[in-house]
Amino acid sequence: MAAPAHRSGQLEIRRHPERTVRDRAAIRAALDRSYVCHVGFVWSAKPWVIPSMYARDGERLLLHGSPLSRMMRTLADGIDVCVTVTRLNGVVLARSAFNHSLNYESVVVVGRARAVLDDAAKMLAMQKLVEHVVPGRWDEVRPPSAKELATTLVLELPLDRVSMKARHGPPKDTASDRATGTWGGELPLLQMYEQPLPDALVSADARVPPSVRALVSAGRNGRGS
Amino acid sequence: MAAPAHRSGQLEIRRHPERTVRDRAAIRAALDRSYVCHVGFVWSAKPWVIPSMYARDGERLLLHGSPLSRMMRTLADGIDVCVTVTRLNGVVLARSAFNHSLNYESVVVVGRARAVLDDAAKMLAMQKLVEHVVPGRWDEVRPPSAKELATTLVLELPLDRVSMKARHGPPKDTASDRATGTWGGELPLLQMYEQPLPDALVSADARVPPSVRALVSAGRNGRGS
Repeated sequence: MAAPAHRSGQLEIRRHPERTVRDRAAIRAALDRSYVCHVGFVWSAKPWVIPSMYARDGERLLLHGSPLSRMMRTLADGIDVCVTVTRLNGVVLARSAFNHSLNYESVVVVGRARAVLDDAAKMLAMQKLVEHVVPGRWDEVRPPSAKELATTLVLELPLDRVSMKARHGPPKDTASDRATGTWGGELPLLQMYEQPLPDALVSADARVPPSVRALVSAGRNGRGS
Repeated sequence: MAAPAHRSGQLEIRRHPERTVRDRAAIRAALDRSYVCHVGFVWSAKPWVIPSMYARDGERLLLHGSPLSRMMRTLADGIDVCVTVTRLNGVVLARSAFNHSLNYESVVVVGRARAVLDDAAKMLAMQKLVEHVVPGRWDEVRPPSAKELATTLVLELPLDRVSMKARHGPPKDTASDRATGTWGGELPLLQMYEQPLPDALVSADARVPPSVRALVSAGRNGRGS
């Protein structure tokens, strides 16, 4: 888990280059498995890292928020931004303290975001954002009103300059550590949805809507942060 | 999920101030529940956000990495850094697309890191890092050699300027949406460890070590990213 170098196109990964994932389909799949990113930007000459929901739509990431949010307003000015999506998949238990590690995948996108201003395009972006987290939910709920649309700032960040790293598999121990008989292996971390909690308005005999049922029954393959 | 303002001591949260958590014990507990952070820094006039393991030790965060890592070398120079720890706890399913949200907790630490140079202090920091992820593991494995210690850069970041936000609970729908009969509620997201996977060196009759057994049996209360 260390910084890629700054280049056009694919970002260069210097530390653990063997963990680089170059396949664009694999990068898109990683972005689709998660929906929380960490947005980095410079404000007042200092770095800020703020978690945010996102969606991938083709070759762009979509972000949204209040036009009153400093992060959103700052990004809408077209400054440099770094959006990082990380998924932790487990702990790597080596035979030495030093060789302990984590299994993970991480996508870093750098560039400049721009505001989506057209109302129809904004509406479509909001649909993509909802559907990215809960596929099928859009059609079950009230769509945004004109006022809600006006109080939402939507940003798009092109997936032009992207890098991905992933570590998976067992520990890498030294020959002498391997001879010690110490236990080594992986401890996989699972993210899954539990049973939905209806709020106080939902009647006891109401059915859980299909979008939510589908996420729960996806079980251990369910998507998470 | 939006940016805190820059101030001394507790950082000011401007968006959704009702989500602010000021209790120091709650902030420490949130930092102890997770062990992956996102480190933001400015390099070559651009923002970078890189995932990293961390540990909390009293009133400081510990980071570590290779002295060859640009992130680590850059941070060791004492530049401004923003470290953000986010835990996603579920999806908030409102009756309108607009009011969908996420339940989460997020801690933002800003400041300047410094290198831990003393060998004994570095050794203690490495112990804290391993024990933060897998309590009890340190005593089961070979401690770092002098050479491993020399090839590890340890940084400490004081927990002086910290903010925390958390959202929990059901959706907040408008009165007219509440009257529609649409299903609303929460979809809790669970992180838990699965059964450990011994690597190819471990004999079939070997027992899983106590540190790993304890994490697995913690079950749904197990810590994750």
